[in-house]
Amino acid sequence: MLPFNKPYFTGNETKYIESAVSSGKISGNGDYTKKCQSFFEQNFGIKKCLLTTSCTDALEMAAILIDIKPGDEVIMPSYTFVSTANAFVLRGATIVFADSRKDHPNIDENAIEGLITSKTKAIVPVHYAGVACEMDTIMDIAKRHNLYVIEDAAQAIDSYYTGKDNVKRALGSIGHLAAFSFHETKNIISGEGGLLAINDEKFINRAEIIWEKGTNRSSFFRGEVDKYGWVDIGSSFLPSEIIAAFLWAQLENLEQIQMVRKNHWESYFDKLATWARENRIELPQLPDYASNNAHMFYLICDSLEQRTKLLDYLKQHDILAVFHYISLHESPFYDKLHKGGVLPETDRFTDTLVRLPLFYELNPNVVIDVLLKAAF
Amino acid sequence: MLPFNKPYFTGNETKYIESAVSSGKISGNGDYTKKCQSFFEQNFGIKKCLLTTSCTDALEMAAILIDIKPGDEVIMPSYTFVSTANAFVLRGATIVFADSRKDHPNIDENAIEGLITSKTKAIVPVHYAGVACEMDTIMDIAKRHNLYVIEDAAQAIDSYYTGKDNVKRALGSIGHLAAFSFHETKNIISGEGGLLAINDEKFINRAEIIWEKGTNRSSFFRGEVDKYGWVDIGSSFLPSEIIAAFLWAQLENLEQIQMVRKNHWESYFDKLATWARENRIELPQLPDYASNNAHMFYLICDSLEQRTKLLDYLKQHDILAVFHYISLHESPFYDKLHKGGVLPETDRFTDTLVRLPLFYELNPNVVIDVLLKAAF
Repeated sequence: MLPFNKPYFTGNETKYIESAVSSGKISGNGDYTKKCQSFFEQNFGIKKCLLTTSCTDALEMAAILIDIKPGDEVIMPSYTFVSTANAFVLRGATIVFADSRKDHPNIDENAIEGLITSKTKAIVPVHYAGVACEMDTIMDIAKRHNLYVIEDAAQAIDSYYTGKDNVKRALGSIGHLAAFSFHETKNIISGEGGLLAINDEKFINRAEIIWEKGTNRSSFFRGEVDKYGWVDIGSSFLPSEIIAAFLWAQLENLEQIQMVRKNHWESYFDKLATWARENRIELPQLPDYASNNAHMFYLICDSLEQRTKLLDYLKQHDILAVFHYISLHESPFYDKLHKGGVLPETDRFTDTLVRLPLFYELNPNVVIDVLLKAAF
Repeated sequence: MLPFNKPYFTGNETKYIESAVSSGKISGNGDYTKKCQSFFEQNFGIKKCLLTTSCTDALEMAAILIDIKPGDEVIMPSYTFVSTANAFVLRGATIVFADSRKDHPNIDENAIEGLITSKTKAIVPVHYAGVACEMDTIMDIAKRHNLYVIEDAAQAIDSYYTGKDNVKRALGSIGHLAAFSFHETKNIISGEGGLLAINDEKFINRAEIIWEKGTNRSSFFRGEVDKYGWVDIGSSFLPSEIIAAFLWAQLENLEQIQMVRKNHWESYFDKLATWARENRIELPQLPDYASNNAHMFYLICDSLEQRTKLLDYLKQHDILAVFHYISLHESPFYDKLHKGGVLPETDRFTDTLVRLPLFYELNPNVVIDVLLKAAF
């Protein structure tokens, strides 16, 4: 069976882990952690980065940093992973779900403003498949209503948004805060892992404290205070150096990994174009303002029935393709709490989106050849 | 400089990591995770274990499981790490600090009952230095007042409590829930890492859900439900298989590691006895009901001044000894919220406790010889 995903290893991961081990420092915030954080700061124009044990944890840090309190409302798409919402629910927030765009699972930027109330505290755009949300509009809404923007950039490493000012900005560098994932299904991996990106400088000091279990340990080691202690809420958000060492081996190879993934993506896109049109299947659409980081290649079927047929057909040919999120506003946990009305586009993507295998060692022609032989 | 701690590696850590990597599964809840969990369940008589990214996270899971809500009170010692408290503060709890025993930094079991109010929800005994709290008394108080007991067993791997029934029970297997740590300073390490121990079966199903980001993914993979989705609050509490593989190499060598550490501990204890008495310094006292897991060897000085002298003297002789916690009830974060009155024993341990180097590769005679040459 051709898997949907296969983690790629550059070959240096265990070498760097051994080096961390032989340095005698394998708890968090060591040399590899600092190297990974600097890489993001320098390559993606982010003011300050902090590695976390998951993207979920980075989102939880963001929720703490913007002081989410019970009753606060947070606007986000319904077509996303549970952690996008749970991170804020854990702090007491009410989630207000917006619909997706017609052309893309990303949040419909024009659906946001109507959902804002006096309780709204933040907007959480999710860059689905690594494709940028319409950030100019979202940042403008946030500014006018005095809201925070937290980018869920879980899938969005090395992807960009070009706004009206014609400046190309990395995703994760635009909102006040952002969260990345290095889960094994992502382009760059560390098994489980994440990173908090801080673009609004006012959050930097407190973020370090929250990251270090609510202590001012970082200040202490910089000599800014003469003893360290409990100064705030917080958690153990920082990963082991073992994880950071693994991640560093991946980041060193970002360019190569991205090149290979983009080639696979382009193969899918070019070779499936005619077949897709003939079968009433949509290929991914990239808005002009968005780049492609080849995180995912998906198809939008014309119905749930067509998708089921397509998934079954691929399975019969030993290819594992998979659907994706189930609308959060219809989840067992949130369906009664949801007050945002019907979200038809979200439901459509829940029913019709299918993800094709995409990983470094893939030969996409294996999948393409099988698809081209069939009509749906 | 002789360090205070040096992580010990068995030699199999990177071999097992390579094996996890070559299996193609490095996200959480894989084979190594299951092996580590089973090891704890089988060796320590715990009903169900779940690996976490830290002991902090295991405590946070416990706080969620017992449904801590704003206003609930949780009783714990003040002489502990910030995470013992923060895990509950994050869920809105008010922390009520109890004093330590006269003979040990552990919570004074006789100080607990007077602190119970109608709002009290849990008691969190911390097994300091891996030495058991008086669990019979604590469990009895909890039973009579309908409270949960959550053992902070961060330092307490392979340590035991023998109650009035003369049964020897592993720490972490007694309270409704318990949390272990594998931070690099512990006997068994994975850099950062922890484990939630569940002894009250009613928590098992929900714990799996909370662990898997609030989804019923575990049920789904066992075939109990036909799709998985968002069913509860939760977080990404599970560590990568990279961490679990590392931990497995350590657990396999638990017996050897413990034997060596206990030898070091006994050397300190036997050879420093006379010197300590002559200098009005206390050595660790083990109650009859408690075993020794040689997590830590500490001295109790007769004053802050004496401790400062002793630490300076050791430093001059290239030995790094360190003090430990600063009373949480006097921390910048909690001093105004604390309503438990003065805690003289806690403050005494804050001022006078000093930890000597203790790690696998240590030659304790190096420290002992230096100490025996001096009077304080």
